[in-house]
Formats: sequence, C-alpha cells, structure tokens
Amino acid sequence: MRLHVVNPNASAGMTEGIRAAAAKAAPAGVELMVTGAAGGPPSIEGPVDGAMAVPWMLKRIEEAEAAGVDGHVIACFDDTGLDAARCLARGPVVGIGEAAAHCATLVADRFAVVTSVPEALPVLRGNLARYGLASRCAGLRAAGVPVLDIDAGTPEALAAIRRETRAALDEDGADAIVLGCAGMAALAADLSEEFGCPVVEGITAGLSLVHALATSGLRTSKRGGYATPRKKTAE
Amino acid sequence: MRLHVVNPNASAGMTEGIRAAAAKAAPAGVELMVTGAAGGPPSIEGPVDGAMAVPWMLKRIEEAEAAGVDGHVIACFDDTGLDAARCLARGPVVGIGEAAAHCATLVADRFAVVTSVPEALPVLRGNLARYGLASRCAGLRAAGVPVLDIDAGTPEALAAIRRETRAALDEDGADAIVLGCAGMAALAADLSEEFGCPVVEGITAGLSLVHALATSGLRTSKRGGYATPRKKTAE
Amino acid sequence: MRLHVVNPNASAGMTEGIRAAAAKAAPAGVELMVTGAAGGPPSIEGPVDGAMAVPWMLKRIEEAEAAGVDGHVIACFDDTGLDAARCLARGPVVGIGEAAAHCATLVADRFAVVTSVPEALPVLRGNLARYGLASRCAGLRAAGVPVLDIDAGTPEALAAIRRETRAALDEDGADAIVLGCAGMAALAADLSEEFGCPVVEGITAGLSLVHALATSGLRTSKRGGYATPRKKTAE
Amino acid sequence: MRLHVVNPNASAGMTEGIRAAAAKAAPAGVELMVTGAAGGPPSIEGPVDGAMAVPWMLKRIEEAEAAGVDGHVIACFDDTGLDAARCLARGPVVGIGEAAAHCATLVADRFAVVTSVPEALPVLRGNLARYGLASRCAGLRAAGVPVLDIDAGTPEALAAIRRETRAALDEDGADAIVLGCAGMAALAADLSEEFGCPVVEGITAGLSLVHALATSGLRTSKRGGYATPRKKTAE
Amino acid sequence: MRLHVVNPNASAGMTEGIRAAAAKAAPAGVELMVTGAAGGPPSIEGPVDGAMAVPWMLKRIEEAEAAGVDGHVIACFDDTGLDAARCLARGPVVGIGEAAAHCATLVADRFAVVTSVPEALPVLRGNLARYGLASRCAGLRAAGVPVLDIDAGTPEALAAIRRETRAALDEDGADAIVLGCAGMAALAADLSEEFGCPVVEGITAGLSLVHALATSGLRTSKRGGYATPRKKTAE
Amino acid sequence: MRLHVVNPNASAGMTEGIRAAAAKAAPAGVELMVTGAAGGPPSIEGPVDGAMAVPWMLKRIEEAEAAGVDGHVIACFDDTGLDAARCLARGPVVGIGEAAAHCATLVADRFAVVTSVPEALPVLRGNLARYGLASRCAGLRAAGVPVLDIDAGTPEALAAIRRETRAALDEDGADAIVLGCAGMAALAADLSEEFGCPVVEGITAGLSLVHALATSGLRTSKRGGYATPRKKTAE
Repeated sequence: MRLHVVNPNASAGMTEGIRAAAAKAAPAGVELMVTGAAGGPPSIEGPVDGAMAVPWMLKRIEEAEAAGVDGHVIACFDDTGLDAARCLARGPVVGIGEAAAHCATLVADRFAVVTSVPEALPVLRGNLARYGLASRCAGLRAAGVPVLDIDAGTPEALAAIRRETRAALDEDGADAIVLGCAGMAALAADLSEEFGCPVVEGITAGLSLVHALATSGLRTSKRGGYATPRKKTAE
Repeated sequence: MRLHVVNPNASAGMTEGIRAAAAKAAPAGVELMVTGAAGGPPSIEGPVDGAMAVPWMLKRIEEAEAAGVDGHVIACFDDTGLDAARCLARGPVVGIGEAAAHCATLVADRFAVVTSVPEALPVLRGNLARYGLASRCAGLRAAGVPVLDIDAGTPEALAAIRRETRAALDEDGADAIVLGCAGMAALAADLSEEFGCPVVEGITAGLSLVHALATSGLRTSKRGGYATPRKKTAE
Repeated sequence: MRLHVVNPNASAGMTEGIRAAAAKAAPAGVELMVTGAAGGPPSIEGPVDGAMAVPWMLKRIEEAEAAGVDGHVIACFDDTGLDAARCLARGPVVGIGEAAAHCATLVADRFAVVTSVPEALPVLRGNLARYGLASRCAGLRAAGVPVLDIDAGTPEALAAIRRETRAALDEDGADAIVLGCAGMAALAADLSEEFGCPVVEGITAGLSLVHALATSGLRTSKRGGYATPRKKTAE
Repeated sequence: MRLHVVNPNASAGMTEGIRAAAAKAAPAGVELMVTGAAGGPPSIEGPVDGAMAVPWMLKRIEEAEAAGVDGHVIACFDDTGLDAARCLARGPVVGIGEAAAHCATLVADRFAVVTSVPEALPVLRGNLARYGLASRCAGLRAAGVPVLDIDAGTPEALAAIRRETRAALDEDGADAIVLGCAGMAALAADLSEEFGCPVVEGITAGLSLVHALATSGLRTSKRGGYATPRKKTAE
Repeated sequence: MRLHVVNPNASAGMTEGIRAAAAKAAPAGVELMVTGAAGGPPSIEGPVDGAMAVPWMLKRIEEAEAAGVDGHVIACFDDTGLDAARCLARGPVVGIGEAAAHCATLVADRFAVVTSVPEALPVLRGNLARYGLASRCAGLRAAGVPVLDIDAGTPEALAAIRRETRAALDEDGADAIVLGCAGMAALAADLSEEFGCPVVEGITAGLSLVHALATSGLRTSKRGGYATPRKKTAE
Repeated sequence: MRLHVVNPNASAGMTEGIRAAAAKAAPAGVELMVTGAAGGPPSIEGPVDGAMAVPWMLKRIEEAEAAGVDGHVIACFDDTGLDAARCLARGPVVGIGEAAAHCATLVADRFAVVTSVPEALPVLRGNLARYGLASRCAGLRAAGVPVLDIDAGTPEALAAIRRETRAALDEDGADAIVLGCAGMAALAADLSEEFGCPVVEGITAGLSLVHALATSGLRTSKRGGYATPRKKTAE
C-alpha cells in the first residue's frame, strides 16, 4: 500500500521532520510518498497562511493521485484543505488534526490540545465543532511558541509545551493530550512517559487511520459534498 | 464611506450581477468598489473551487485595502476565505452567508436556507455550526440548479427555488427564507411577496451589516485568531 | 427614517443617558424617538423587574407604532419583552443584548459579556442559548455593581468593570467584550482603546442593526410565533 | 401542605377547568388554593398575551405567599412568568410545561409535545432549550386549535389532537406524549389508553413535582438569578 | 403505595444507611422495601463495579416486582442499570442521580455535582449528557474520598466535601449543589444550612419523584427502548 | 500482534459469523482470538440483555488479557460494556459501534445508522451523544428485523435493510451508511456497490481501528474514569 503524506507548509526542513516522523510511524507494508507544498508559505500560522497554502497542497494531492497512491495524510494540525483534498482523491484522506482527536477519544474520556500559538486556536476550535468532537475536548491551550521554533526544539519551546500539558491534565481535567502541531511529533513518547497518559501526535494517528480506512476498503463518499469537481473546475 | 464587495467567483457576468444587486442595496452615502476574483474558478460549487478562489480573492482584499476602503463584503454564500480576509483588513469583513443568517434570526424564529446544488450543503452546514446559528436553522435545501443557471434565470431554476421555498415553510417549519446563493439576489422581493415572509438575500444583508459595523466603529479583533499575519506570510 | 429607542426602565435619568448615547450612535438620516417605560420599575435587575416593566414598554411600542416609526430598539440588555414587541410592530425590533452579541461575533471569534450584577447572569445565559450564540460566548461576568451606580459612573464601578474586562480577555480567552448594561454605553470607546479589542455596547449595535434591517426592507415574520395578536388580546 | 395553582389566563371558565383537574390530581394531604389572573388577557396564545398576563399572575403569587402556601404551580404550558414567580416565592415554584417535560423524560426516551396553535411553538421550543431538555424532545406539534376551543372540547379539536398524537409517535419516533396546553388535561387518560404510551399533562405533573420538592424541603435558590428583589422593585 | 429502594452496592452497611435515609425521606403513606445487591461488588466506584452489580440489582427489581411494588428507586448516583430496570418494571423507575439533577434544575439555574472519586466523573458526565441536563450543570467535582470513607463520615471526608461545595458555588457559579453519592445523604441538611442554597441528595429526590410519577399514574413507556424483554432474555 | 474479538452475545452461531467476518477483515500480521459470552443471553436486543451479558464478556476480556493480547474489539453494535472493558485491559479497546461511527465521519459528511429493531435505537442514540458524534448522524433507522433473523439472512431481512438504506440516503440526506448490527457484516460490500456510497460495518472498522491504536502505541488512559479497578473489585 502506498500512502501520501503532504506537508501543506513549504518549509523543506519541516517536510524532512515529517518524513522522519512518518517513516517511524508507518504501518508495516506501507510505502510512503512524502511531499511539501513548495510555492506556498513556509509555515501555516493562521488563516492567511492556510489559504495561500491550499492550492499548492492540492497540486501535490493531484500528483500523488496520478502516481496511484491509496490514501493521503494532510500533515498540518489545522487540517488545511481537507475538504478539497477529499473531492480530488479516490482513496481516503485524513487530516492529522482530526486523526489525533478521533484517536484520543478512543483511549480517553476527554482530551486537551496543546498547540503552538494562540492565533491557531479559533481554527482548531472551529474544526472540533464541525467534526462533532468539541464535547470531548477539555481544553485548547497554546504554548505561545512559533511553529518554526518548535521544529528547532529549543528548551524554551519544550518547557512551554510541558507547562501547558500539565495544566491541561490538572486544571482542565483532560486524561489524554493531543499535540496540536506537526512539529511536536518527536515529543510524544517522552511526554507520555513523563505524564503517564496517552499523548497523541497527528502524523502517527493520521497514517494509522488512513491505513485503517484503506485496508477496510473505505473511501470518501462522492454522494454529497465531496463529489468530484465537474470539469470546469480543473481549467 | 467606501465599501468593497468582492465576488470570489471569476465569472465576469456574475460580478456584474453582484454589482447591480449591490448598487441597489447600498445604504445611503456608501461608495461601492466591486471586484471579482479573476484568475480563479468561474463559479464556486464545492470545496475545490473554494480553495482555488481564495488566493485571488485575497488579492482583491489587499488591493481594496490599499485603496482605503472602510469594509468588505465577500459575495459568495460559502463565505469563502472569510477568516483570511479578516486577518488582512483593517475594517470589518462580512460574508453574505453569515450576514443573511444573522439578519434572518433578527426577524424570524427559525430560517431555512434554499441554495443551488446539494454539494454546497455540507459547507453551509459547517458554517452555521461554527457561527453558532445551527439551532436557528430549520432546514437546508438545495434546488438542484447549478449557480450559472440560477444566474441566467431560467424558468426551471425559478420553479425549483419556489418549490423548495414552499417546502421549507410548510414542512420544515421555517418562518423566514435565506437565499443561499449570490445569484438569487434579484428573486428576494418577489419571493417575499409571494410567500408572505422575510426572504433574506446576502448581498443586501452583507452590505447593510458591514455598514452597521463600520458606522459603529467596530473592526475585527486582532487579539486572537484574526491577528495580522507576520511578515513571513507576505513574502 | 424614524427609529424608536425604548428604555424599559422607568428611571428618567437612565432614559436621558440612553438618549445621549443614541443621539451619538444614530446612523446618518435617522430621526430618533426615545421613550422610557414610565410606570414600571426604575431599573431592571432581575425577572420581577423585567416582568413588571414589559406592559409599560409595550405601551411605548404601540404609541411609537401609531407615530409611524420604522423600527424599534429595546434598550435593556435583558432584551426585555422582545418577543412581544415583535408581535406588535410592523417594522423590525432589535434588543440591545442580541444586537451586541451578533455584532461581536462578526468582529471576533469569541466574546465575553461584562454586566452589572450576578442576578442578571441567568437571564443573559438563557437569552444567548435561545439566540444560538452561547457557543460564541467565552464567559459571562458580573462586575457586582448595581445598574444605577454604573449610571452614576462612580470610580468603584469603573474599576470593577475594568477588572472583569481584563479577566475576560486573559482568563476566558475572549477576543471582544460586550458591555452587558445600557448604562455602560459611554465607556465603550475608552475600554476599546485601553484593551486593544472591540468593545461592543448595545445601543450603538441595536440602532445600527435595526437601521440595517429597515434599509434592507426586512421586518419580523408574521408566519410563526410573532403573528400579530388576535383582537381578543387588545381588549 | 397548601399548594397554590395559578392560572395566568383570566378566563374564569379555564380556571374552573384547572381547579377540577387540580382537585383530581392533588396528592393526598394537599390543600389547594386555585386562582386566576383576572385583569389580564382571557387566554395566552402568544408573547403579548404572556407579557400582559404576568403582572396579574405575580399578584396572585404574592397573595398566596401572604396566605402562607408551601409552593406554587403555574398552570400555563408556556411557563409564563416562572422566573419572576421564583424570585417572589419562599417555597418551590413549578411551571406545568417544565413539569410535564421533566416527568416525560423519566418514563420515556423521547417525548413529543402536542399543543394548541402554531404561534405557541417558538416559546415552547425556547423553553425546552433553556431547560436543557430539547435533546429529549422528538417533535413539537400544533393541532391548530385555539385554546378556548380545546377548553370547550369540540369534536374537531379532539380529532386534531389525536391526529397529531399519532404522527408524533409514528413519524417523530416519540415514545411518550406531552399535552401542551392546560386545557387538554382531561384528555390525558383516554389518549394514554388509546395510544398505549404515557400521556403527560402538566397540571398533574406540576402538582406532583411541586409536592415532591416541598416534601423534600427544596426551595428556590436565592444565591443566583432568583434572588428576592430588593425593595425598590416592590414600590 | 409500596416503593422499592435498591442499593446496587452489596455493602450491607451502606444499605442500612440508605434504609435510614429512605425512611426519613419517604413521603407520607409510602411503605418502603429496601434491598441491597448482595452478590455484587461491595461498592461501585467505576464501570467494572457497575457492570458486575447490575445483574444482582435486576434480581432485586424482579423480586420487588413479584412482591407488587408500585415503583423503584436505584440508590446509586451512577444510575447503575437504570435502563434495564425500566424494561423489567411495571411501574416507574428513577435513579437517584437523574432524580437529584432534575430536582436541582427546578430550584436553581445551574447546579454543580460534588461526588466521591474522580473515577466517577466520566460516568456522571455521560449520564447528564444523555438526560439532556449537561447545559444546566456548572461543574462536576470529586472530593477525592472513597465511597466507604464517606459512609464512615470521617472528618477528612467531610472537609473535602465542604471544600468542593464552596468551590462549586464560588468558582463554578452554581446556585445549587447535588451530592453525587448515596452515602452523602445525611450531610444535605447541614450543608444547605451552611452554604445557604439548595443541597439536593438523591435518595430524597428519587423517592419523591417516583412517588410523584406513581401518584400521577405515569409508568415507563413500552413503545420504544424500554419494551419488556422477549422471553428469550428471561432464560 | 494478537487482537481479541469478543461477541457479547452467547449465540455460538453468531460468534462463528463474527469469526468469519473478523478473519476476512483482519489487517495483515494480526493473529485473532475470537470468543463469545457463553453464559449470557443468546442475543442482545435491549438493555436487559446488555446488562446480563457484560459480566460474561468481561470474563472473556480478562482471559484474553491473561493470554497476552494487544487489544480488544467488542463485537456488538451497542458497545456493550465498553467502559468496563477499558478499565480491565492494558491495550486499547474499541466497540464496533463507535468504530463504525468514527470511520464513517472520516469518509462522509453525515452518516445514517441502519440497525435491527426499534428497541435498539435509544441505546445507539445515547452512545452517539456521549461519543460526541450525534451531530454527524443524519438518522437512526431500524429495519424491524430481529438480530437472529438478520444472522440467518432471510430475504425479508435483506429487503428491509435495503429499504431503510435507501430512505437514509434519500430522505435523511446521509452520504454514508453504518450497519448497526454485527450480523450485517456480510452485507456491507454488496450494499456499498448497490448504493454507490461507503457502507461501514463495525467488525472491519473495529479491527482496523484497534490495530491502528495498537501500532501507534496508544492505550487507554488510566488517569481518569478508566483507572484499573482497585483490588476490592476483583474479589
């Protein structure tokens, strides 16, 4: 099975981090295709970045479709362009934000999200409301650290993430943590060990869920809002 | 006061229709700037169209900002790119979908939306959930007519819209109708007369609401998710 | 266009404050008629006050209808008697509570309400639930200051309002503030300046929204719960 | 124990019907005081009627308090003036609308309301949302029969009520019926027999619940929105 | 009228405590039958205990049915086995958790639950969501005290319960308290006195509600999910 | 990886059907252990069956834990005993009801459930509310066919399932179907082919999700409501 992981951020360094995380997380028998949305903004930290990134990401989706992949993971916690990607793909498409949230509800009563910057919170809140999982979310917290700093793994970034994790468990009453940024993937195992609870990171969750859907023979419904665009659109 | 109405669809004909509707609807003392998202898809009938249209629409937002407008109306019922536009603009930004829904709740207990094609329903449903107005919506109905046919005003299109309007009132228990497509603007007055209830069309609603916000001195908060993008984004 | 602003409180001083705020807020071309519910309780600080005030306020609505106004604003943040007023009026009717909440959701992701006394909170919470906007409200806070003290503008009242405003932004995560009492209208501009976010006060919001509805030709639906009362009721 | 049942409608005939229903429904050991809101509208069929009735009803509440009753039932399905009555009374106060809905959820998974006229539906919908029981309501149906005709017990009225009852069970999937009008009280037993399911009428439900609260020593909290009005209000 | 109170915990001491509380709370004219789920776990402090207790509790329900009781109260705040008991009983069945929550909403705007251990919270949260009363709940708090310690009435247990009660009122904004454990029944009166607000305990609430239903002639609907099990089940 | 699929129904025939479905659905590299809740009711068609089945099912969970499995699937669409099983297991536990619903939301905007008998609907409705996925469910439909008849595959059973499937798509507006009964597993592929949309059956969904969780290193949080029971419970 071939699965495509697309980084909607243009940053090549971030794409390499995602490639490494995906390689570690890929289910047995999965061949990975990892791409980045070169041409778009280096990192997505708000609605404008998101909007500018999507057309480039959809190009990667179409190229991967042409290459015959069996499913796609959108490796940005905003689930940037998820609906549009579902319209273009034959196989299943999963965003790492929704994947992590769904997985968290299967191993905990209520999860909290710890993400990068406060600007990201409204998008994540809106996504959870649409997915139906808002009632399972005990809190949304921003560590106040830009995405590229998280990627760099500075001690300040790590300290801020640990502080919000503890607050989410102790003050919000969460019993699992969702790491709300693709760049946090490498931290999941240590945080889970330290805090004694599930810490879900999206790349692993996304790959395992799209693999689960693909092995189950499930693909996006074309009866409703995810219908394949009529020709006009492609011009 | 100068207000910018942007058609996120590229279709010049549709932009002209919007210009006509906006000219009719503009509050006294408003100077209009009407633009279209030339470069993007001719019409937006699903998430892929929406995603491809936004970068072009944001260009129009930035041009209008440079021209010093006091507020913006996004003239597509999907409220395409609304969050991103709010980040870029100094003044208030309103989508015609949210504008029509808010206005409907001020003149009725429960409204129903009558839109063009079924593919549009999930986006509209998701929007209403995010805005918080889903509980005020008695039904979402598609007339099964493509946007460009509505614009052309064929008798079949009109008959389908009237059929769904009646069903929304009689079966769904709505007491007001929201026309879910910019191209339906010209029909509002006749439908209101025929069915004896408020029929809200978004261009009028959007212009009057953004005018209300601007005259009230209200503009998008920059404290949260609508912060002005940092420089990186503009490159 | 003539718009009627009715103060459901009997206090003449408060009516004068509302008249001043309305005069400042009125859109161009609007002629104001400002009345107070003389005969009812001096100020509305709970359900009993509200119930006793409504019949007197409805009298003002009927008198203003007889005088041919084009719309009404109910200038109490409880939106006292709003449904009944909608049944009696030909034109649109807006309460300052709902008006402020709707406007806030158009310029911010989540608003918080800062009101006078804790006794007011359940009514406001119930209203937001009915309007559908509860999910957009990050918090409801009472400054613990009686309405008439707010009107008097004591330093203690102002300090309490500023304290709760700060808490709403920092602790509740709001990115806009709604001032939950007609008597706070004069504070909006300074608070907005100080806290760097939209501060919505209801008189301005109410006037601009009812003006928006009236210029759009929208009036309360008579198909449902706002039907004109049958004769029996008037006896 | 002395319990007060107040009819917020002025109609003496309706008050007699309520007295008869209450006498039949009163728990053992309960002494009844039954009053009507003479001075207000003959029947409540919309928000204006409701608003005009409340001051008269609150007078009855105060008179009954002076007479030393242990609790109150508001015998109108709109729960007219319930919040205000709670502020004035020492003992518990229950509206027949909320009482019937709460009882229905204790004997069924989902109930439907069958009421008199469509104008009543928005108020009932709003009430259920505030009580928190909207998710337990499978449908709200109006028989299209005015309150006074229901009271008169015409065959047409009965046929319409039976038709909507059947539809609520078969089409809405309700497994219990709530009769949404005080005047339907006498029909409950026969309808329950005919349709083989619980048919809850509010006078019985209200009396038994207020009796339950009073025997449990529970009375309205004065810590929050139901605080006893300060003196000013009583003038 | 004969009412059955079943303790789904096996602990004989706890059953005696419940018997004492029930004897004190029983409405006039009620003959009590109090049983315990001997054979099951001594106390229910999580889903496994709950699951193991239900078959034994259902045996008690069937024995009480054979003895001709008019209704049942399930005396565990989890409402353990409530749905199953409703299928087996002719008369009404009420859990003390739902009973207390319903009663609290009739005497307060928003209640908070103070229970024993944090493990209990997810079950209670889930129950309130299903009952529809989650929106009326200002907070769920665990005192961190095991059920059997509460029963023993240690000073530490009482101090913890008082601490959480105060926090629920001051921080969560509740205006009534629900005691979330059958073993707390004896504390209700003192806490209500101390904190000046309704403190609802479930045994009194449950008995008074099932008595209210039974005197009203209401019993569980057999049209839907509570249908009497077909024979197969009884083998 | 070893995964345990437990049939909470005692019927050996049904367990064989589940074994066959599981064998077909198992991801590569998965060794299956399939058990049935011998000792409990032959089939679960309501809350009493469910309650009586759980203790036997938990025995199977404990035996499988002793045998060292890596995760469990509860093969009843009611997700019978799911919370209790999570407390007892080291690895992840997934119910086929929740698994199917989660998968459906990843390939469609809104799903509908087609299940066996109407008695099952309240449990399923309650489950979806608790999971948070109720807003994604367009309808819950019962084919009116007992579980054992579905297992036998009678033409009447198949016709009824097809009729409700069509109604769910055409009338409820679903764009995917969830088969709400373990015995329907064999029908999924044909129905998906016939109706041109995803048809999710729980055994495949459950196995693939628990496999996804286990390969991701995710297991149930023990910080909250799923804590391992203290010793007392095991006696």
